[in-house]
Parts: sequence; C-alpha cells; structure tokens
Amino acid sequence: MKYANTMARSSSKSDDPDGSIYLKRLRSPRRGGRSDWYCARLIAFRLLVFLSLALVGCSATAPLQESSRPSADASATDPLPSWNKTAAKKAIVDFVQRTTTTGSADFIPPAERIAVFDDDGTLWIEQPAYVQFVFALQRLQEMASQHPEWHREEPYRSALAGDTAHVFASNGEVNATKLIMATHAGMSTDQFAAQVHDWLATARDKRFNRTYPELVYQPMLEILSYLRANGFKTFIVSGGGVEFMRGFAGRVYGIPPEQVIGSSIQYQYRIIAGKPTLMRLPILENMDDGPGKPITIQRVIGRRPVIAFGNSDGDLQMLEWTTSAPGARLGVIIHHTDAVREYAYDRTSKVGRLDKALDAAPLNGWIVVDMKQDWNRIFPGN
Amino acid sequence: MKYANTMARSSSKSDDPDGSIYLKRLRSPRRGGRSDWYCARLIAFRLLVFLSLALVGCSATAPLQESSRPSADASATDPLPSWNKTAAKKAIVDFVQRTTTTGSADFIPPAERIAVFDDDGTLWIEQPAYVQFVFALQRLQEMASQHPEWHREEPYRSALAGDTAHVFASNGEVNATKLIMATHAGMSTDQFAAQVHDWLATARDKRFNRTYPELVYQPMLEILSYLRANGFKTFIVSGGGVEFMRGFAGRVYGIPPEQVIGSSIQYQYRIIAGKPTLMRLPILENMDDGPGKPITIQRVIGRRPVIAFGNSDGDLQMLEWTTSAPGARLGVIIHHTDAVREYAYDRTSKVGRLDKALDAAPLNGWIVVDMKQDWNRIFPGN
Repeated sequence: MKYANTMARSSSKSDDPDGSIYLKRLRSPRRGGRSDWYCARLIAFRLLVFLSLALVGCSATAPLQESSRPSADASATDPLPSWNKTAAKKAIVDFVQRTTTTGSADFIPPAERIAVFDDDGTLWIEQPAYVQFVFALQRLQEMASQHPEWHREEPYRSALAGDTAHVFASNGEVNATKLIMATHAGMSTDQFAAQVHDWLATARDKRFNRTYPELVYQPMLEILSYLRANGFKTFIVSGGGVEFMRGFAGRVYGIPPEQVIGSSIQYQYRIIAGKPTLMRLPILENMDDGPGKPITIQRVIGRRPVIAFGNSDGDLQMLEWTTSAPGARLGVIIHHTDAVREYAYDRTSKVGRLDKALDAAPLNGWIVVDMKQDWNRIFPGN
Repeated sequence: MKYANTMARSSSKSDDPDGSIYLKRLRSPRRGGRSDWYCARLIAFRLLVFLSLALVGCSATAPLQESSRPSADASATDPLPSWNKTAAKKAIVDFVQRTTTTGSADFIPPAERIAVFDDDGTLWIEQPAYVQFVFALQRLQEMASQHPEWHREEPYRSALAGDTAHVFASNGEVNATKLIMATHAGMSTDQFAAQVHDWLATARDKRFNRTYPELVYQPMLEILSYLRANGFKTFIVSGGGVEFMRGFAGRVYGIPPEQVIGSSIQYQYRIIAGKPTLMRLPILENMDDGPGKPITIQRVIGRRPVIAFGNSDGDLQMLEWTTSAPGARLGVIIHHTDAVREYAYDRTSKVGRLDKALDAAPLNGWIVVDMKQDWNRIFPGN
C-alpha cells in the first residue's frame, strides 16, 4: 500500500479499467524471491489492518498529555535536549564522538558517514494507521463525486460506505490493490505531489488534533540535526511511498528528496501537449520493506550505512545489513512504550509489529530506545 | 548489456542453468511501454555492435596526439582551462554566473542546483566499444577455465573462440543476454565490486595504451569541479551498470556512489554463513537509457535537474526533461568531432549514435560542444 497508485480512475475510459495490468504483474515473479504477489499481499495486509481498525474504531484515544517534562539538567548546548540522560542517549552520543574524533580507533571518514532511518514509527507517528493509508482513504472519498461508477462497482462501493468487511470478504488482496491504485496512480508526478502537499497541509489526526507533519518525533528531529552537524548524511529508507514522503521530508526532517528512498510505482515518460511528463502507472515498481531495504540501500546509496534507526520487524534486515559490516556500527530500535503520550505496542501489533527485531536487538548490540523512559518529549512544541 | 550479470555459472548446479528466470522475465511486459524485451534488444544490439567491431578490428587507430595545445590565454584562475574561448564555454560560464549570483533574475537556490551527466561518451570514452562491454568479454575469457562446459555450450563456445558471427547467427539477443549474465551476476555485490576494481586498475585501451579511468575527458572533469564549486550537486545518470560505474566514479569524477544512477540488475538478500549478503541475480532491474533516464531521475533524485550533459540519442529524453522545466535550464551535447585526438562519429555510429538529439538541439537551445574546436585537450595529462 505504501507506495503507489491511482489508475486513471478519473476517466472511465482508462486503458486498463479492470486493473489487468497490475494483476498480470502480480502473477509474474520478480525481484528474486520477493514476488509482486508477496508485495501485494503485504500491502493488502497493511491496508486490511487499517481498514479493520477504522471499522472497529480506535480504542487508544487517550488525551494528549505528557508524562514528563524536559529534564531540568538539559543544558542549552545539549544537542539532544528531548532525550533523558539514560543509557540510550549515552550510547548514541558515545558512538558519534568515537566515530568523528580524528585519531580515534573508530574514526569514520566523512564520506562514509551514512545514516539511514525508517519513517513510519521511527520519525513520525504510525498509529492507529499508517498516515499514507489515511491519505488513500480520504482521497477515495474526495474523488468519489467524479466517479459515479464507484457507487455501483466493488470494492469502491463498500469502501466508500465504510463497509470494509465486505471489501475483504473475498479477493481481499485484489480489492485492496484496486483501492490503492485508485488513489495513487493515473496522474503526473507533479499532480500527485500537489495532492500530497495540499492534504498534508490540512488533514489532522483526530486524537492529537494536529496535522501529520506536526506528529513527528522531536527527539528524532534532534538526532537528525545532531548527526548532520557531525558530518553524517541522513537518508530515509522506508516502506512508505517515496513521493508521499518527499511531500514533507525536506521541510520537516531537513532531508532533501534525493535522500528519500521508499516504495515506488512505475512511471511512464510521455510528451503531453508538447510537454515532457512522467505519468504514474498502477504498477508496483518496488516495495521497500524487510529485505527490500538492504536492496534499495545498495541500489541507491551504493554503500553500507554506519547507522540505522528503525522500529519494527520491517527494519530487521536494514539493521542487520548496517551493523554486520566491519568497523563501528550503530543500530537503534525505537520501542513504543508510552500509551499516555503516544502509543504502546510491539509484538502483537498489526501496525508496526516489533517482534523478531526486538529479539535480535540484544544479540546484535542494538540499542532499544524506551520512548517512555528515554524521551522527555514526543512531538515538537509540547 | 550495460547493467547486469553472471548467473551462478561458477556452479553448474545453478538453480536456473538455462537462464529461464531471465527469459521468463523477458516475456513479461513491464515499465509501462518499455518492456524487458525492448531492454534486452537494446542490450543485445549494443553487445552485437561491440562484438562485430571486435571481429572486424578497429580501423580508427590513429596514434595519440593533440591537434592543439591549451590556449595561451588561459589564466591560472580559469576554472575551465581545457576549454577554448569559444561560444560553448561562454554559454556555460554565463549560465553558471546567472544562476548562482544572488539577486539575479535567474538565481537558483543551492538545494535545487542538480546537474546530471551521462557517462559513456560524455565523461569518458565509449569507442570503439563501451568500456563495460570490454570488461564483460574479458571476464568471460578469465572465467572460462573454471567453466569447462563453456567450451561445449553455445553461445559461450563461439564467444570464447571469437566467432561472434555464430553467436548472433540465430537467437542473437538471447545469446547476448546469456553472455552478459555470465559475467555480471552470480556473485555478491562485494565480490563484483572487487572484480571491477581489479579490472579497472589493469585493463588498457589498445589505441591509447591507458587504463580506462585515464580515458576520461579533462574538460569534463573541469566542468564537474566548476559546478560543484558553484554549489551544484553532480549526478551520473547513465545506461552503464551502476555498480560498474561506482568502481571509479568517486576517485576519478569526485562523484560519490549515492550520486551514481545507472542500469541495474536485481539483488537478493541472503544470510550466508551467518553473514548478510546481497547476491546479484541474472535478472534486469532497470535499463537507464532513453526515456528510462527521466524515470530514474525522478525516482532517485526526486526533482528536475537544472543542467544536463549528454552525447547521444540515449540522452534525448534526459535533456528534454531537464530543459523543459520552468526557470533557467542548461542542456549540453558533447559532439565527437575529433578523429585525430579521439573519435569522430554521430548520426550513423552504432555506438553512441547522435542523430535525433542533434536535430533537437537547436530547437531546444542546447549547446553542442564541438570537441575538436572547443576543447584544447581531451584526456588528463596530455
């Protein structure tokens, strides 16, 4: 789900009204061991999770409040004031000092200081549903008036009526895929960027009554700045759609588009009315999750990171790939432990499940950040 | 050809001894209008060109010499001393000054100063054959002793014997693909990088008696440095294999791996003897040529470049995509016009054909650099 989308649903004269291009693709194996079918299942599963949650309502709606305030001893010069003085902070600062001090045995040349970050659940909120899922369903509602056929055709009819049970009653994965493609493909890259921009500026999370770019983690913003100040180049490597994330990564995280890596759909180069245009096709290009993360890291960055931050089992291979390389390496897992200020979830969560990676952490020397204990604030400004 | 590689030919127990994975892939449409079949044809065509040239010998073997020396008036502070004071140089310098001077109507903020460069024929030599083609065929010879079956099986047998006519007599494209996969896949990314590194350090071009990294264009090295000194971020966007180019782009061009974009094969993430490994599979991931260039630019860089340098029809869409965007834009074509110091070729060449893009240049305001007239030296140090 987190990657792609709308068929040219804006025109019922679409060349592929039934999604057969995508379905054909689903059936052809690719990516050596990770088939489209696998990706589609993963996507569909995630969408299913969201829709189910939307259907049953979210019980974790505790009011926004803080369990602790910034610690009084955070000096004005502390680059990480939202981090309590616990072992996690100490280990991170120690790593940065060891690897950036000339003459240190662990010194890493500036060019090799590559740090990668998952996005959902690591840099910003992912509960009760991935933000991009919320975008997809709201887009579906917004687009419905131009698609009278959706009120007759499944799975659009049920999705618009909120009857997600029916959407997933049979052919759930195919149906989920159709909903996704209906909202993320069929337009130019410029048009999609404008839609994302507009949505991010206005859509609000119900529990926190904030726009989503305001639901980034302040301690992680500090980590990004701190690392960049020490010569690290910061990249996002996320299952989220690359163009969706680029809609806010620059102004919110300070990460330019060329350092945002994510899932993507295929593009087609066309000259439209004399103007070169890239159209977004309803065909998955790559799913940047799990073992897909080391793969895109190698393809796009071309060298192994020295630091990786993640929060779920989807980050397991990225953490392995980063920290198993020779030399000083840092792996960090953000563990959501604060139901009062944010959410508490791990091994049994359907969104952002953290199970295998939590077991792997002590074996690999990864730091597990306890949000409740290690962070004295969660979001900017509170 | 310019992208991928060896099946696990080092083991006759390969899971896919007949290349059926690749062939299956060839038959499935993808990339919205650019099928693998198209890519394979392009690749095979290029390899065919090379093999044909190798077969008939290269007649353009004029001795290395210079037709002109650096102009006497090139001052010590001139950032482009290998460029003669012609209109091309003036236009490039004028563009950089206009777009980087605060207060200029054409000023471009530093973050948006993205410059993209084709590699083969733009930054380094591509005649009489793409360098990566030479690598592939030499690797085939080197690997032959470990593959006794190649002396019995086609197309390896004919290729090793230099009988390229037989290789292409029937099923030429499939045969070419097999030769390519035999040399670029079936090993880990680290192993391939080591092979490329070793080959580039020793292999020499016959005409110039230089290693290939010594056959880069000095005037283009100056352009790269000049642009970076003016805040431009320089990227390679080439049909060449991304991992092959990374083998020299850093030390020769000053372009880090994360700014090298090229054709690629698929990777598979595996834990081998407890060690995370990325294996190179004999399956094309993307062909970064022609309309593929704007596509990878959008996917990886995420914004439109303001400067593009190319030299062949494979760069046409990249130049279009770059210069049709609003604001000041610069498109440059390197025209190979110097048979004495390098090579002279354009509309009818089978390697690096420049035909449609040459016609498009005046219509789009692209600068056409005449190597013979505009450059006072070709390679570093001569």
